[in-house]
Amino acid sequence: MNTTILALPGAETLAQTLGSLLRCPASTLEVHRFPDGEGLVRLRTGVEGQRVLLAAHLDHPDDKTLPLVFAADAARDLGAAEIGLVAPYLPYMRQDERFRPGEAITSRTYARLLSGAVDFLVTVDPHLHRIDSLDEIYAVRSKVVAAAPAIAQWLASEVPQPVLVGPDSESEQWVGDVARRMGVPWVVMTKQRHGDRDVQVCLPPGAAGEGRTPVLLDDIASSGHTLAAAAQVLRAAGWGQPLCIAVHALLDHNGIDLLHRAGVARIVSCDSVPHATNAIALGPWLAEGVREFLQD
Amino acid sequence: MNTTILALPGAETLAQTLGSLLRCPASTLEVHRFPDGEGLVRLRTGVEGQRVLLAAHLDHPDDKTLPLVFAADAARDLGAAEIGLVAPYLPYMRQDERFRPGEAITSRTYARLLSGAVDFLVTVDPHLHRIDSLDEIYAVRSKVVAAAPAIAQWLASEVPQPVLVGPDSESEQWVGDVARRMGVPWVVMTKQRHGDRDVQVCLPPGAAGEGRTPVLLDDIASSGHTLAAAAQVLRAAGWGQPLCIAVHALLDHNGIDLLHRAGVARIVSCDSVPHATNAIALGPWLAEGVREFLQD
Repeated sequence: MNTTILALPGAETLAQTLGSLLRCPASTLEVHRFPDGEGLVRLRTGVEGQRVLLAAHLDHPDDKTLPLVFAADAARDLGAAEIGLVAPYLPYMRQDERFRPGEAITSRTYARLLSGAVDFLVTVDPHLHRIDSLDEIYAVRSKVVAAAPAIAQWLASEVPQPVLVGPDSESEQWVGDVARRMGVPWVVMTKQRHGDRDVQVCLPPGAAGEGRTPVLLDDIASSGHTLAAAAQVLRAAGWGQPLCIAVHALLDHNGIDLLHRAGVARIVSCDSVPHATNAIALGPWLAEGVREFLQD
Repeated sequence: MNTTILALPGAETLAQTLGSLLRCPASTLEVHRFPDGEGLVRLRTGVEGQRVLLAAHLDHPDDKTLPLVFAADAARDLGAAEIGLVAPYLPYMRQDERFRPGEAITSRTYARLLSGAVDFLVTVDPHLHRIDSLDEIYAVRSKVVAAAPAIAQWLASEVPQPVLVGPDSESEQWVGDVARRMGVPWVVMTKQRHGDRDVQVCLPPGAAGEGRTPVLLDDIASSGHTLAAAAQVLRAAGWGQPLCIAVHALLDHNGIDLLHRAGVARIVSCDSVPHATNAIALGPWLAEGVREFLQD
């Protein structure tokens, strides 16, 4: 079956990269905004009988989700045989339970909406915490691509003698994976959160990082408060100025300022979300993940 | 069954009005935005076993649709027996066919998304053009409330000797309805559209408005270009400065300026969309429409 890649606005580079790695045509969708704020999506090429891969960057998702669903419905309506979504960052994964009475469990609703639009999904390190697998909330087939090999490769070539530090227990899965691949020491902090921007972290007793470059690693950097608090604790413990790596960088300039003020020497991210800090390319690993769905 | 009304952000007044007319409690939903742009919805009150009416203003819909679907899913999850949506303005009704090859038919996709979230729907004068009834695209029960009685009542008390003018054939259904209720003359122009902001309208031969106040009436005022072009034609034909009435006012300040520059004396709208031009209250008619769903 022929495969064609269609980029949602902002994902043109992702679509081009996948197109050249998978040797299939990549083009852009036309998305028009009317004066009243409604969107209109148009496919520029025929898709009848084809497999369509929609490439999308879904950070700041609310504005991007309707165009994505419109594009998927249009592709199906125009005869596409199969529709896949390549979204390196999968949003709405953190609200996976009702933390206060009356709260929506947005991860389940968002999963229902996307599952109603596409046939399969490829993403990078979704924030799986209380949920063990995307299959628990997504009704469609999915492939999770790990960023750990790309991060380990980048660290091996750029940072001598690293010690990896996870700012909280949720980061343990990523930090442990990268550290084991590199054979370097690692430690995970404990975190207490008191609000969106108010977090407290502690190093476990006995943790030591002398003579090594501390590398803070987390899956998502959003407000930056967790990583900033972790950086301050590392400096207070005499570990020096850490490097920060985020798989998914959602930081705005306030978050970046905050990290630098907390003594972070450098912020680096994977290119799952287009961001000024992007340094680690995920293209080859993403293409490998997509390839599993291109067997016929 | 007990009914409770919950307001999405911006629809607090709508919820209060319905609450007092229908004699049921109305309160607001808590909608929080995280620094990364994700939304979280929280119901402040229990809804178990109740009928929940979600009150929402859905102009500029893309930002408002996920919170609405999150709220509906949360209400269901928390035991609501039935969930209705009161959205006086129903968006995404104009893209009801594929005007150029490859376009999404967004009206159908949007209808599918809302139909997946709620059990019934009450709205005011949806833009039904090539689609005859909401039932063709909405899978849930719906009630269409007409703005014509409210507009006719307002005109009768505010405007002596009106002649009603529809700027295009799509407006004929609303203009004819209001004019027949009032027993006043009316005429419909013909329109050719060449783009979002480029429209040409003509008065039919023989139409005469001498000695009457011209009242331009349309269901949706968005960019304002259609109504501005119509106002210019009326003035060129010697009809004087028209009053403009929109059921749903989506005009930004550019649109308002445009209408005033085209010689519109006054712009008036129904309160289906909160807008500086609101003058015609729909509350009693909306409440009547909702009441059909409150029979048990």
